[in-house]
Amino acid sequence: MIEQAVAYARAHREAFLEQFREFVAIPSVSTLSEHKPDMARTAEWLTAQLRALGMTRAEALPTGGPPAVYAEWLGAQGKPTVLVYGHYDVQPVDPIDEWASPPFEPTVRGENVYARGASDDKGQILAVLKAVEALVEQGPLPVNLKCIFEGEEEVGSPHLGAFIEKHRELLACDFVMNCDASILGPDAPAITYALRGLAYFEVEVRGPAKDLHSGGFGGAIHNPIQVLCELIAGMHHADGRIALPGFYDSVRPLADEERAALAKLNQDDEQVLEMSGAPALWGEQGYTVTERLGARPSLCINGILGGFTGEGSKTVLPARAMAKVSMRLVPDQEPEAVHEQLCAYLRANAPNTVTWAVRELAHGPGAVMDRTSPWMEAAVAALREVFGAGPVFRREGGSVPVVGMMQQLLGADSVMLGFALPDDGIHGPNEKQHLPTWFRGIETYIRFLASL
Amino acid sequence: MIEQAVAYARAHREAFLEQFREFVAIPSVSTLSEHKPDMARTAEWLTAQLRALGMTRAEALPTGGPPAVYAEWLGAQGKPTVLVYGHYDVQPVDPIDEWASPPFEPTVRGENVYARGASDDKGQILAVLKAVEALVEQGPLPVNLKCIFEGEEEVGSPHLGAFIEKHRELLACDFVMNCDASILGPDAPAITYALRGLAYFEVEVRGPAKDLHSGGFGGAIHNPIQVLCELIAGMHHADGRIALPGFYDSVRPLADEERAALAKLNQDDEQVLEMSGAPALWGEQGYTVTERLGARPSLCINGILGGFTGEGSKTVLPARAMAKVSMRLVPDQEPEAVHEQLCAYLRANAPNTVTWAVRELAHGPGAVMDRTSPWMEAAVAALREVFGAGPVFRREGGSVPVVGMMQQLLGADSVMLGFALPDDGIHGPNEKQHLPTWFRGIETYIRFLASL
Repeated sequence: MIEQAVAYARAHREAFLEQFREFVAIPSVSTLSEHKPDMARTAEWLTAQLRALGMTRAEALPTGGPPAVYAEWLGAQGKPTVLVYGHYDVQPVDPIDEWASPPFEPTVRGENVYARGASDDKGQILAVLKAVEALVEQGPLPVNLKCIFEGEEEVGSPHLGAFIEKHRELLACDFVMNCDASILGPDAPAITYALRGLAYFEVEVRGPAKDLHSGGFGGAIHNPIQVLCELIAGMHHADGRIALPGFYDSVRPLADEERAALAKLNQDDEQVLEMSGAPALWGEQGYTVTERLGARPSLCINGILGGFTGEGSKTVLPARAMAKVSMRLVPDQEPEAVHEQLCAYLRANAPNTVTWAVRELAHGPGAVMDRTSPWMEAAVAALREVFGAGPVFRREGGSVPVVGMMQQLLGADSVMLGFALPDDGIHGPNEKQHLPTWFRGIETYIRFLASL
Repeated sequence: MIEQAVAYARAHREAFLEQFREFVAIPSVSTLSEHKPDMARTAEWLTAQLRALGMTRAEALPTGGPPAVYAEWLGAQGKPTVLVYGHYDVQPVDPIDEWASPPFEPTVRGENVYARGASDDKGQILAVLKAVEALVEQGPLPVNLKCIFEGEEEVGSPHLGAFIEKHRELLACDFVMNCDASILGPDAPAITYALRGLAYFEVEVRGPAKDLHSGGFGGAIHNPIQVLCELIAGMHHADGRIALPGFYDSVRPLADEERAALAKLNQDDEQVLEMSGAPALWGEQGYTVTERLGARPSLCINGILGGFTGEGSKTVLPARAMAKVSMRLVPDQEPEAVHEQLCAYLRANAPNTVTWAVRELAHGPGAVMDRTSPWMEAAVAALREVFGAGPVFRREGGSVPVVGMMQQLLGADSVMLGFALPDDGIHGPNEKQHLPTWFRGIETYIRFLASL
């Protein structure tokens, strides 16, 4: 049955790609309220796809935010139940000028198809659905399947925790297969067993009551942009460590054996530098790049805005300035504690010439998974079959809040099985999906689901 | 003749206000290229007004940027020639949301009329023209009059120097009356005898080749926003002094007698604080607020932009960040030297994890004028007659590059005679003109021009 399903998948690549185009063409940008109707359209599209696969239940469920798409088929008696997780929302597209083709008009160039969501995460979701299609074409599914596709991962899944809690029964499973995941290269399969958490804030600094003339007041009134910059500058020590009070107190130290295992990953400094296109590497002293990205927390200024930023010059001393500040967290840091650390830092360091406010925009815990479960072993075997080499186990710098939530609320570990590539440009312009890898992903999902 | 002219001005206040509305309704924003046609319209409107006043020549002259409006009437034999300077361009209107009424729909509320340009500088220009109208209605003008109204003061007058040099003959005069000026309050006339210069730059910091995912790269790639903030934070010492190398080397020290004179100004700390609406004052230690604003240089971050600044959260590690950085200069600082000091600072302090670039957007020298010229004395007398009190002499924090240019290129000192108020909100939202002060301004111009 497996080989027929694989053959089916190979014979239907053109049709699969056509559906890929349809799916990513819907601009499901969750962070911008103007795209709310597109979120609903995307959920409907997914629901229709799942019904067509013969799911006994497929519907868009309310969450308080964009709907979550749920589906199930539970006819495989005696077999485990896998809950497939993915997210159908995508990042905003700015800077739009840097896209070589429109982000919501999927365009094939060479071996890649370019579009927002091509890799993160619509492309991965569709690879799972196409694997299911290839299997059901051969007979009843060999595993009990539940699917949950959320629509607000890119904004930190604010309603997902409550949704999972409310639907514990519905979502009960033996394990989660999370397709929002990546490998290291077209010939370098990998399984992520740890993820960083996220705490995301907006910091606002306010000075004068209104925008002032910089000539009339400059030198006697503290500039909120200057103050914000000084506060941001103080958030890191010269050695790259984060200066928020108590920030490292609950960071779980890296064991020597894990450091040794991570050192064997073929993700070397040169590779990260090349992928980034930056002039040089940077980071916390005393740790390798792999450790900095996967096993150590970081603090990033995701955005900053103040005063006049248009064409030309305007001599304004602005009333306020704003920065988006996010931290990637590792076990056992808690987002709530980091929120308090940020406020404590601002209380201690903001001068009395301004007022400030912190607003939390998103948060989620980090997670570390068991590397020896039967599901993990099945994933290793499927990857080895398709890629000709077993995966490396790695810790990832990104955050997938749902993994920690599934652990905490459902008691279910996740197998991170997805086929994004490091150079896919997710969250930036010209996001792409590498088509040969995508087709291999579909075959891996077929083998994995059939072998459980 | 003077008293009849004043009576005429009082009788025509409604008509004057109607023309005020017409003038400020044209959105002559010089820094935004989309307003280029509005610049031409404004110049035409002014030219027509000047022709109607009986000027023997009135035309819009090309400058390379927006046209400069020139007019003359030279029939007062044996009398001095005054060159009236003003600028018909205005600042951009953002933040547009904070305007209580649309910026280009002049709206009277209480004693004020609100509109962009109401005070800076269209309102002042029109006050001069209405004074001339009141005088010519009574007979031939009692003074030789030239007018030059430029259209790019708000972007640092990039073409004005070359224009003045080319038209030295045309612009030759005994002195300049510059109406782009202010007093201290409705009952507190003042004459500015010194202005700060300006050097305005855009600083760009570039890190990765494209926007990256902050989870995938955060902690191993230096964030350009963070670097820019660190560089900006380092531009001031903790005592408020500017840290660019050599920045104070050519700053002319304040003589004790001038410090004593400035100390007598009724512009006290509380007043500046109240006007600004800021929680507290700030600035260079060892100097009073009056000195900080008028006689010491300052460095202001006029704008900053990087990464994602929209609604919600986006986990991006951006490729670049930008800040608009301007310095107010005092004699004998040179903008070119400050440009080099900024570059030297960045060379010494920017880490090798980024590249940077500096672009000069505008510059102009500072100036100090003779407080004892006959023109200055005539201005003092006119102010005393209208306001019932003589003016205080002050140094101003803002920059009027043309004043230094007129000194250097025409050998002509300027009398700064204008009636903006400190709380007019110039450059910010809800810019206004205080109408009782505007009418007094017209009467002052009548008395001044008739007494030369």
